[in-house]
Amino acid sequence: MSNIPNSAKVGSNVVIEGGVIIGENVVIGHNTVLLEGTQIGDNVEIGSNCVLGIQPRSNQKMRRINKNTRKLIIQNDIKIGHLVSIYLGTIISDNVFIGDHASIRENVSVDTGTVVGRAAIIELNSLIGKDCTIQTLAYVTGDTILEDDVFIGPCVSMSNDKYMGAKEYKLKGPTIKKGAKIGNNSSLLPGIVIGQGTIVGAGSVVTKDLTDNEMFFGVPARKIRS
Amino acid sequence: MSNIPNSAKVGSNVVIEGGVIIGENVVIGHNTVLLEGTQIGDNVEIGSNCVLGIQPRSNQKMRRINKNTRKLIIQNDIKIGHLVSIYLGTIISDNVFIGDHASIRENVSVDTGTVVGRAAIIELNSLIGKDCTIQTLAYVTGDTILEDDVFIGPCVSMSNDKYMGAKEYKLKGPTIKKGAKIGNNSSLLPGIVIGQGTIVGAGSVVTKDLTDNEMFFGVPARKIRS
Amino acid sequence: MSNIPNSAKVGSNVVIEGGVIIGENVVIGHNTVLLEGTQIGDNVEIGSNCVLGIQPRSNQKMRRINKNTRKLIIQNDIKIGHLVSIYLGTIISDNVFIGDHASIRENVSVDTGTVVGRAAIIELNSLIGKDCTIQTLAYVTGDTILEDDVFIGPCVSMSNDKYMGAKEYKLKGPTIKKGAKIGNNSSLLPGIVIGQGTIVGAGSVVTKDLTDNEMFFGVPARKIRS
Repeated sequence: MSNIPNSAKVGSNVVIEGGVIIGENVVIGHNTVLLEGTQIGDNVEIGSNCVLGIQPRSNQKMRRINKNTRKLIIQNDIKIGHLVSIYLGTIISDNVFIGDHASIRENVSVDTGTVVGRAAIIELNSLIGKDCTIQTLAYVTGDTILEDDVFIGPCVSMSNDKYMGAKEYKLKGPTIKKGAKIGNNSSLLPGIVIGQGTIVGAGSVVTKDLTDNEMFFGVPARKIRS
Repeated sequence: MSNIPNSAKVGSNVVIEGGVIIGENVVIGHNTVLLEGTQIGDNVEIGSNCVLGIQPRSNQKMRRINKNTRKLIIQNDIKIGHLVSIYLGTIISDNVFIGDHASIRENVSVDTGTVVGRAAIIELNSLIGKDCTIQTLAYVTGDTILEDDVFIGPCVSMSNDKYMGAKEYKLKGPTIKKGAKIGNNSSLLPGIVIGQGTIVGAGSVVTKDLTDNEMFFGVPARKIRS
Repeated sequence: MSNIPNSAKVGSNVVIEGGVIIGENVVIGHNTVLLEGTQIGDNVEIGSNCVLGIQPRSNQKMRRINKNTRKLIIQNDIKIGHLVSIYLGTIISDNVFIGDHASIRENVSVDTGTVVGRAAIIELNSLIGKDCTIQTLAYVTGDTILEDDVFIGPCVSMSNDKYMGAKEYKLKGPTIKKGAKIGNNSSLLPGIVIGQGTIVGAGSVVTKDLTDNEMFFGVPARKIRS
């Protein structure tokens, strides 16, 4: 058991493994599990039935995992919902909000003020900027870059494997530039770049790079107006 | 700890906060958390690792929450799966079925006989009619209205924010009239109305109001036959 | 409480119901629930807050469930993530990997070496071949057949009910032949057959059977090259 400050409010049946660090004024919901390597700052609220500090693992078909990712850093003034899973090797910055049932993999950085929606998933090695909104059930694939102020609508889908496992390929998710907005349930292909301030309408399929400050829609997505 | 009737069958490590009310013949799975304000009727089955009675919270980017929603009402003859989350301020009516991993937010009403599928999500302020089917992984956004007998296929996506956070806007989800059926993985835009008995084919993007008793398909959805 | 071998590493607050069988060198995370009828082989790792061995249930609108499915068989050398749910009547074969938040229903067979992604869902009566990849948030509907080496991209959606509940109909999911690959967020209609080695581009809607070894894209999906 770790040292838990007197200011912490810890629920029933909470499991806190050795070496976990907990700041001041932290609230931890019932039945939540904090695994070894988890570091929590001040004024953090965590819901019930979460699992934080998960050690990456894989099978032989999946890419080799760097097992040296030893810490999950959760900074200050953060709210984490219920039934959430977050891996080691990741940093969650100040004022981030993470919805219930969300999952964040290893080697991810979520910068200040960003909202990660309910049941949204962020895969490994992705960089999420400041003040982004990643809506409910959105899927941010591995090796994705979101610059600041990006809006990812509900149920947006991304991929990072052009050959769907058929050949060796350096996995690469989308790069979404500052302030771009992706409408709900759109599909983004591997490695595409979406320009700064550009808007993609709901249900579009983005198959190639999109220029800045324009609006696109359709399957495949075409420019509809500047 | 609340008063628990002798007829209740309560699993291991269940957490029941003060003020929770539990009816007759209730089954509660292991490790489930019933937070303050939860009221459960008769003949209700709840799975393991659920979190019920969640207090709404938000950060500064998200809309202000009414913190006066003090009750979660779960009526009678209801089955709730495992790993489910439900908020305060919501009413689940008789004979509703809620699948595993589902999540229902605050100020929602789910009327009698409706099925909420596995991992389906219903956001705040939505009204769900009688005998609806909301299939697996479907996303019902905030401020949505489903009249009775509506069918929402698997992975259907909705949005309620026309400007994707870019300007002030009264959030408004779709209104789906009695008996309408939405095919799997369709996308519905903010504020649209789908007519009574109308059918939307799978994978469509509905960008404007649809008339009653017709069939639509495509991106954007067009009438295909009456 | 069942007999637990000395080689097992069992977390805190784990619930193991009577009649559960556990092999050698098994790791079980904290707060996980193993319900009656669960049988676990050797060298299996299970994360925290899982619920395994769930008894099927339904309400009057859903199809009648065969309540005689009495076992969940988890073979050897299997990794199961956190917050996972799996039903009785299902068999998970050697070397399968199941991601966090995934859910697998009753009467499902997942053959050796297959990866079931994070938050992916496999509904009842589906047969999944060897060495398949079912990516994150993909939805495999009931009565689906995946032959060996099939790739299902992230957020792919399937349906098995042509009339969306409007009339009696023998539910039938897609049949996806050996080595076929389905791009992310595609939608597959009930009962369609996707040919061996065929590729479906991201965001497509597959409305009819597709021949072998070709490539299809669009809404509806059309052949784009051989």
